[in-house]
Amino acid sequence: MLGFFDDLKKEYVIKNMYPSRPLLNYLWNDTTVCACDQFGFGTSWSVINGVRRSIESGIRNLSIFDGERLLYIKDKEDNAFYSPNRNYKKECFDDFACHVGLGYQKVVSNYKEIKTEFTTLVPSEGNAVLFAVKIINESQRKKSLDLYFMLSPKIENGGHEAYTSADFDARLNGIYYDVTGDKLPNEYIKSYLSTNKKIKSFAVSLNDFRGLYNTFENPEGVMADKLCGKGSVFEEKYIGAFQYEVEISEGETFETVIVCGFGKNYEDCLTEAKRFSNKDTFDKELQKQRERCDSCMGGMEIETPDAHINSMANIWLKRQLSLGKDWGRLYGRGFRDVMQDTAAFVALDTPLARKRIQEILKHQYEDGNPVRMFEPDNTSPFNDSGAWIPATVLAYLYESGDLSVLDEKIPYRKGDSYENAYKPEGFLPYRGTEERYSVFEHVQRAMDYLYSSRGKRGLVLFRHGDWNDSLDGVGLQGKGESVWCTIATIKAYNEFIQILDLAGKHDLISVYTARRNELKENVLKYGFEGKHLLYGFNDYDEKIGSDDNKYAKIFLNPQTWAVLADLADKKTLHLLMDQVEERLSCEYGYVQCAPSYTEGTKRIGRMSYFKAGLVENGSVYNHGVAFKIVADCLLGRGDNAYQTLKKISYDNPSNPNNGMEPYAISNMYIGPESKYRRGDAPMSWVTGTAGWIYRAIMEYIIGIRPVKNGLLVSPCFPKTWNNVQVKRDFRGATYCIKFIRSQKFSITIDGKEVEGNVLPIGKMGEYYNIVVYFD
Amino acid sequence: MLGFFDDLKKEYVIKNMYPSRPLLNYLWNDTTVCACDQFGFGTSWSVINGVRRSIESGIRNLSIFDGERLLYIKDKEDNAFYSPNRNYKKECFDDFACHVGLGYQKVVSNYKEIKTEFTTLVPSEGNAVLFAVKIINESQRKKSLDLYFMLSPKIENGGHEAYTSADFDARLNGIYYDVTGDKLPNEYIKSYLSTNKKIKSFAVSLNDFRGLYNTFENPEGVMADKLCGKGSVFEEKYIGAFQYEVEISEGETFETVIVCGFGKNYEDCLTEAKRFSNKDTFDKELQKQRERCDSCMGGMEIETPDAHINSMANIWLKRQLSLGKDWGRLYGRGFRDVMQDTAAFVALDTPLARKRIQEILKHQYEDGNPVRMFEPDNTSPFNDSGAWIPATVLAYLYESGDLSVLDEKIPYRKGDSYENAYKPEGFLPYRGTEERYSVFEHVQRAMDYLYSSRGKRGLVLFRHGDWNDSLDGVGLQGKGESVWCTIATIKAYNEFIQILDLAGKHDLISVYTARRNELKENVLKYGFEGKHLLYGFNDYDEKIGSDDNKYAKIFLNPQTWAVLADLADKKTLHLLMDQVEERLSCEYGYVQCAPSYTEGTKRIGRMSYFKAGLVENGSVYNHGVAFKIVADCLLGRGDNAYQTLKKISYDNPSNPNNGMEPYAISNMYIGPESKYRRGDAPMSWVTGTAGWIYRAIMEYIIGIRPVKNGLLVSPCFPKTWNNVQVKRDFRGATYCIKFIRSQKFSITIDGKEVEGNVLPIGKMGEYYNIVVYFD
Repeated sequence: MLGFFDDLKKEYVIKNMYPSRPLLNYLWNDTTVCACDQFGFGTSWSVINGVRRSIESGIRNLSIFDGERLLYIKDKEDNAFYSPNRNYKKECFDDFACHVGLGYQKVVSNYKEIKTEFTTLVPSEGNAVLFAVKIINESQRKKSLDLYFMLSPKIENGGHEAYTSADFDARLNGIYYDVTGDKLPNEYIKSYLSTNKKIKSFAVSLNDFRGLYNTFENPEGVMADKLCGKGSVFEEKYIGAFQYEVEISEGETFETVIVCGFGKNYEDCLTEAKRFSNKDTFDKELQKQRERCDSCMGGMEIETPDAHINSMANIWLKRQLSLGKDWGRLYGRGFRDVMQDTAAFVALDTPLARKRIQEILKHQYEDGNPVRMFEPDNTSPFNDSGAWIPATVLAYLYESGDLSVLDEKIPYRKGDSYENAYKPEGFLPYRGTEERYSVFEHVQRAMDYLYSSRGKRGLVLFRHGDWNDSLDGVGLQGKGESVWCTIATIKAYNEFIQILDLAGKHDLISVYTARRNELKENVLKYGFEGKHLLYGFNDYDEKIGSDDNKYAKIFLNPQTWAVLADLADKKTLHLLMDQVEERLSCEYGYVQCAPSYTEGTKRIGRMSYFKAGLVENGSVYNHGVAFKIVADCLLGRGDNAYQTLKKISYDNPSNPNNGMEPYAISNMYIGPESKYRRGDAPMSWVTGTAGWIYRAIMEYIIGIRPVKNGLLVSPCFPKTWNNVQVKRDFRGATYCIKFIRSQKFSITIDGKEVEGNVLPIGKMGEYYNIVVYFD
Repeated sequence: MLGFFDDLKKEYVIKNMYPSRPLLNYLWNDTTVCACDQFGFGTSWSVINGVRRSIESGIRNLSIFDGERLLYIKDKEDNAFYSPNRNYKKECFDDFACHVGLGYQKVVSNYKEIKTEFTTLVPSEGNAVLFAVKIINESQRKKSLDLYFMLSPKIENGGHEAYTSADFDARLNGIYYDVTGDKLPNEYIKSYLSTNKKIKSFAVSLNDFRGLYNTFENPEGVMADKLCGKGSVFEEKYIGAFQYEVEISEGETFETVIVCGFGKNYEDCLTEAKRFSNKDTFDKELQKQRERCDSCMGGMEIETPDAHINSMANIWLKRQLSLGKDWGRLYGRGFRDVMQDTAAFVALDTPLARKRIQEILKHQYEDGNPVRMFEPDNTSPFNDSGAWIPATVLAYLYESGDLSVLDEKIPYRKGDSYENAYKPEGFLPYRGTEERYSVFEHVQRAMDYLYSSRGKRGLVLFRHGDWNDSLDGVGLQGKGESVWCTIATIKAYNEFIQILDLAGKHDLISVYTARRNELKENVLKYGFEGKHLLYGFNDYDEKIGSDDNKYAKIFLNPQTWAVLADLADKKTLHLLMDQVEERLSCEYGYVQCAPSYTEGTKRIGRMSYFKAGLVENGSVYNHGVAFKIVADCLLGRGDNAYQTLKKISYDNPSNPNNGMEPYAISNMYIGPESKYRRGDAPMSWVTGTAGWIYRAIMEYIIGIRPVKNGLLVSPCFPKTWNNVQVKRDFRGATYCIKFIRSQKFSITIDGKEVEGNVLPIGKMGEYYNIVVYFD
């Protein structure tokens, strides 16, 4: 058994110590992120003043989960030792469980009548990671044990090991890593590892702890009577290891807390270490993290016949979405990504959504096109970013009813997105004259930019790429046109027109409606190949996503987004989605394109150089699969939507050993055209897919979403679902909704039947009982 | 026992499998370098078109010796396995030896009646590393074995794993690592691992070979019956592993050759693999490497009563010096470093010395100051580089008698060393008008630059630093003056005056003599503190290396170089060297300065931020120790010179466990003021110290060095040496010199006594028997 969901505790419990790949969890606060696998292994880092500073680093540096955080227990009776969280020798433990929690990770094992609990926690604020170790003597006699704890704090030495030393410090009751130097990467140059219990000995270097010629199966330090207890200098690899003497009688418990962090100087480190390294603080911080996580769990809860979907929608997708909400993509904040995450969490944290809209619009250039990514910057001129704005702003307006956000003044990013990039002949980027503009003006300027940045077919230009980051060769000369990006613009115009309506700017509606219709015509004229839509045209007037081509004859997103954008009549949209089913389906999802490229060309870009079946080149890219589920629902294809969701589920029997965490969404499954590792899910957690799957379930399958006058109820269930219950908070009221399969659609509120399918806006604090009879 | 020298085979034989740190060897040709330790572990890389391209990479990336090159042998009778070159489980081998060779490394072990030989070789040319594995059945019965070989070829994926795949290829009889991609770091994008014997199976990923949760003690692949035999894609860590079925009767032998390399495309890889993966080629290339190495072993050979010094001077220092000669400092080529190495190997490869002089002078700016480092560039304006030129040119002229080199035309590096750096007020850098200038003009311009680049005391400016790279804060404002660099300039003028004499430019001698005398006066006026010389003055007119200071009251190099530059009368020079003995001596050498800084200041620079006892901040920096030995000899202090040499020897009983290779010189021993790791020698091989220790022994202790009219004989032996024999090749003649302790100094050539202490230039091909009676 891999494990099970414990929804009451909001935990997933991993029971298999050695799954087919490490199962990941992230812990974080506003400045610190910590990665954990089922052993509690991983690394951590902080961002301060916009600069990333690692707290821990792995020894091998293969991935952020490669950081050893090791416990060993040695029984002094026979000197036999084992690692209760890692069990290198695969001894037969009596029990093992890793509790994947929200904001913490707890690894529990039982072996030789000793129960060990190892909890990792990121405190509610601050730049440190906390660990608690608890040992319970479950035997009938006294035990004399040595407990060891080891990890690798990151030493930022600015490239010269002569700047570094480490030693035990009595005031810290721990190890102080003293880095000097005049060319260091940041001002947080000192590190510490501190504990609240008396230690027997310590080690500061990998060679002292593990031994130069040993592995972690048999570390020299643990095999010896005592750790070396020596400081060191000029080490290639510092670690921090403590040895505790643990004498516990039957039923007794030993507990210690360890904190790893950094500071600008010794006093900083001491203050932080003292603040965090005690059990009370640990327990309080654990409680705070629970509360913080719980506060993101509201908004909407569902109870469907599918327990896994319930756990995902009610707990885990909200959690994964929060990682995006708080940390972007970890490696940086993409404009497109933050916009999507914000649209997804608007019901979960409406005030934060307002704040994010204001923050992110600062990254829109004066010409109206936002930057691709910030923190750190990626200024390659992608053209799709603006198309993501209206959906998010509209979602906020519908959720909150707060139109005032449209009047907030936000500065533009200086300059324009054509700086240092190819400019079409005669191109004059728009430049504003005032420093701050309203949110409304930002949205409008994005719409104007997209309309102005078009090619000879009247389709939106690719420039450096669009949603498909890897089509980075198609438009560099400023000629290639994107069918998909034009459809995305049409969808954005649809949303902008609703914003105009809400904002009372009715005079503008006809202008933007006309433009939108023009874009629709152009897409259908140039982009429709009889049965499916092209992806676009490159700089050389070559079609992308056409049956005329050898590779990538059809792409997923233009078809699904045609539905999202309401591009054409229903029959045509069904035709497109039938093509998706026919040509892009596989046993574990839908591929981004087919067939995959197997020859790279600069006329296409990175995508064509990727191995077949990987990432944008024919993988089951789950972001696109989420769009597909939404499209299915919009067309009333509920069984298709549900089956698609189940295909990408971790327990799809057609794709065993995919490696997925049951409680997370991955970026992709390696596609069926790959020669190797078909169906593997190597990249989880860090993806905007979480937000889209969340919305697909809540807003489209369950079908509850805010509209102008209230909550739309538009369920699109699979045939097998007869009863579903939902709790939805909306503008301060609570809607308790029971879905009952029936002969025809009707809704009652507190027993009274209402017209149509929109629940009216309720009163603050009120509680409404709603029954939806659906057919 | 650590091991022993086998001078006949020019090997050091390591017998201790687990020394206190890995013992290093380097193998190389003109384009490829390979690092090896006593297991044969290490990594390798090539430089093509000035770009570095790794061949192998380690899994942990801690150091270039961290690359696993692993053998396992499994006996099918009981499925027990072990690693014959690494022996992770520290089983009791019957024998182990690592033969540290010149151009190869051979690890031999005996266990369970199986002898295994694992030889690593860099071929005489090309971008590949070769391995030969030989298994000999020394039992009395047939053995059915599985042999495994594994290493990690470096995959240069340009930052995206989706560009990569690897699989077995039948034509290669090995693994082909197929990298595609449009943003790769170089054009050598494909890698291969090929063998000449039929394999039973293979693996391409670390997870397949070692297992996701195993260590190399118990790799999953070896524990299984067969390696997985699967290709893979999108791997974080590719490896290459072969499994061979080995059936050998008693006394029988199994041999295989493996080659790891890269190419631009598949055909390239195939050609290279076929060229190298056979036993004949391996044997031929081994022979070529022996010849190549032997060709650098000539010049001068000695037989003293000290066997270690004989091995070092006759074999190992020449070898280590060759690494500098061929590869600079591996991380780049410093102007200063190449100049020194060239001066040291001029007798070993005189034509190459001529070539190097021409090559390196291209890196001198038009203003006369050379660049600090090239390949890659370090353009920080260091001021000492020019002072190293005359010694090297003069050494070449004296060794070869070939004055024509002075007329060779060499272009300057465009621009001047003040570009992008602080320029003193009113400074106008000299700019030539012609493109190419003679070597002589280069030397002269360097001399003129040094004279022009002086501060208010008439001492040469520090600018970014001098020999002491870590005094990088003292002169950035263009005011700080270096006493040491002025002394180095005086020494350079002494040598330049000899060049003027040889070149017949007698009219210039008085000009440069006057300047030199002026510099001497200035040093003695401003730099002499009664008993020792300062290091200099920083931009704030603060003294460096003064008793007035809290830290670094005295530096080693100004005292020793005063002797090298013949700065003052003998009494003063002895006084300085007495200070060195009194204030800078420790049990394992002489420290760079005392006391070490323990507070960093930007007015000094990096040196003051280094931990006490490290690198320039108070370590036993062996480069400086070598200067000290030369100074001792120049003052006739032979016992001091010899004792100093023995202090830094690997077997100094006062500094056991220093970790040094018996056959190499390290950059430093961690100094006595370090709180930790005192006496450790963590950085060996890659240091210009090898050349200087070589010269200290050959030219100053033995005391044979070319001068204007022949070979100077100026021995400076320790009292304990009574008989020494030397063979010296010089201008095509061979001088066989026997030193015999006597009452007074005299020399006979072929039995005839000659006047003075210079052996006249002999006839080409002649052989002279010389006896030197010394007192």
